[in-house]
Amino acid sequence: MLLSFETKLDEWVPADAPAGLGEAMRYAVLGGGKRLRPLLALAACDAVAGSLEAAMRAACAVELIHAYSLVHDDMPCMDNDVMRRGKPTVHVAYGEARAMLAGDAMQALAFEVLTPDVGVGPALQARLCALLARASGHSGMAGGQAIDLASIGKPLSEHELRDMHRRKTGVLLQASVLMGAACGTFDDAAWSGLTEYGAALGLAFQVVDDILDVTQDSEVLGKTAGKDQDANKPTYVSVLGLDEARAYADRLRHEAHLALGRSGLANTAWLSILADKVVERDN
Amino acid sequence: MLLSFETKLDEWVPADAPAGLGEAMRYAVLGGGKRLRPLLALAACDAVAGSLEAAMRAACAVELIHAYSLVHDDMPCMDNDVMRRGKPTVHVAYGEARAMLAGDAMQALAFEVLTPDVGVGPALQARLCALLARASGHSGMAGGQAIDLASIGKPLSEHELRDMHRRKTGVLLQASVLMGAACGTFDDAAWSGLTEYGAALGLAFQVVDDILDVTQDSEVLGKTAGKDQDANKPTYVSVLGLDEARAYADRLRHEAHLALGRSGLANTAWLSILADKVVERDN
Repeated sequence: MLLSFETKLDEWVPADAPAGLGEAMRYAVLGGGKRLRPLLALAACDAVAGSLEAAMRAACAVELIHAYSLVHDDMPCMDNDVMRRGKPTVHVAYGEARAMLAGDAMQALAFEVLTPDVGVGPALQARLCALLARASGHSGMAGGQAIDLASIGKPLSEHELRDMHRRKTGVLLQASVLMGAACGTFDDAAWSGLTEYGAALGLAFQVVDDILDVTQDSEVLGKTAGKDQDANKPTYVSVLGLDEARAYADRLRHEAHLALGRSGLANTAWLSILADKVVERDN
Repeated sequence: MLLSFETKLDEWVPADAPAGLGEAMRYAVLGGGKRLRPLLALAACDAVAGSLEAAMRAACAVELIHAYSLVHDDMPCMDNDVMRRGKPTVHVAYGEARAMLAGDAMQALAFEVLTPDVGVGPALQARLCALLARASGHSGMAGGQAIDLASIGKPLSEHELRDMHRRKTGVLLQASVLMGAACGTFDDAAWSGLTEYGAALGLAFQVVDDILDVTQDSEVLGKTAGKDQDANKPTYVSVLGLDEARAYADRLRHEAHLALGRSGLANTAWLSILADKVVERDN
């Protein structure tokens, strides 16, 4: 499944975009990353026995959005990070201007991939674009990043921290699940169960990210460790402490499993494994 | 028509996006600009007697894409411009990080505006998203900007210059026309006539832009004049000379009118006026 995803991504991210733009886009999105969002989309599609062709496009689109956000987030005016997925960040490799344009073009490409001339019905195309646009924009990922920027050095309550992370990473993880599910047929219980699963998993992902930031070194993470602490950013570890953060991640994993049970879907094995993987990962 | 457009834009660009993001988005897109792209979308919809509600969404979406591209283009790592539409640029007013995020969120919002829960049929939503994504991305606007960046200080042939501008500004202007037309019904002759009209008008727009850059001062333009020359960027004036550039703009205007004739559409009065306006404008 993932091999086929990598093949499709390689096919859809253009090598021939002008003036080195394609090269920077491919550098940013090919050959690296955990591919969690694509896996969620494909697993959710599997749970509803949906169209694999449509889900493959959804998987590529969410990964393109995620990868573009990393390119922009790493730039000097944002987090100013020089290492990502074990390689120099895009602006280090290609310069800031091309990095910004590559990110912009990757966001557009996500919607291009979702709207092919044939192979995915127009109603599903519209539904996938709607889900992705809302998860990427001001009420989702971009909004979460704006809160993140504004909160450096400020004390945040656990509630405020949760709102920031829900937008910044949770909403796109949840959208990955729902976009995969949209490729098949489902009843209200399934949609609501998958919505709750996505919310719990999205939050668990961030809690674990905060734990790994203080417990792992940069080599294992493939990015600079300890950055949040150095930048005086509020994290689940700084707000809850390490032990309580670990217990919280486990409770969220349990919630994700319960939500899958409530979905009434028979075939949730992949989604179940992914919930465990998100919490048990070491990078 | 334009008043109603401004009302819709004001309604759809959120004031309450978190951490000042909404404020920066509204600063970037409300209360300024020629609104040429929205006018083209609405005029094309008028020519095919299409759905005004859908065309209004198309009009807002193309303006959001145009406005986000200006925000990113003005940033220090790109053109480093401090003045736009007679006001400080977004990164001067709000800082680089928020400017970049506002641009990112505006691109996502364009696709959100095109995919409402009700009011526009799903097949049309998918068609509009497809047209906009292709015009904004690597094969359109972002690709043109990459060529622009790479061409500073380099001699370009007229052919290369045309390719750059076709992508950088022409494709989105053409997409504005086609998105408006997609909101109604049309035959092949109409679609192909409007496609040619959009191509001629898009190119004329850029030729005139290059003329104005050397003949007008910054106050009239609302942005820094003479920038292209200072940056040693190839332009139609530097390649053709001023008189020949003016003659070329007039030929393109004529081509646009001829294309409208070939479209077989009866009601192209607004599109015709816009072709004249693009060439006769003084800012």
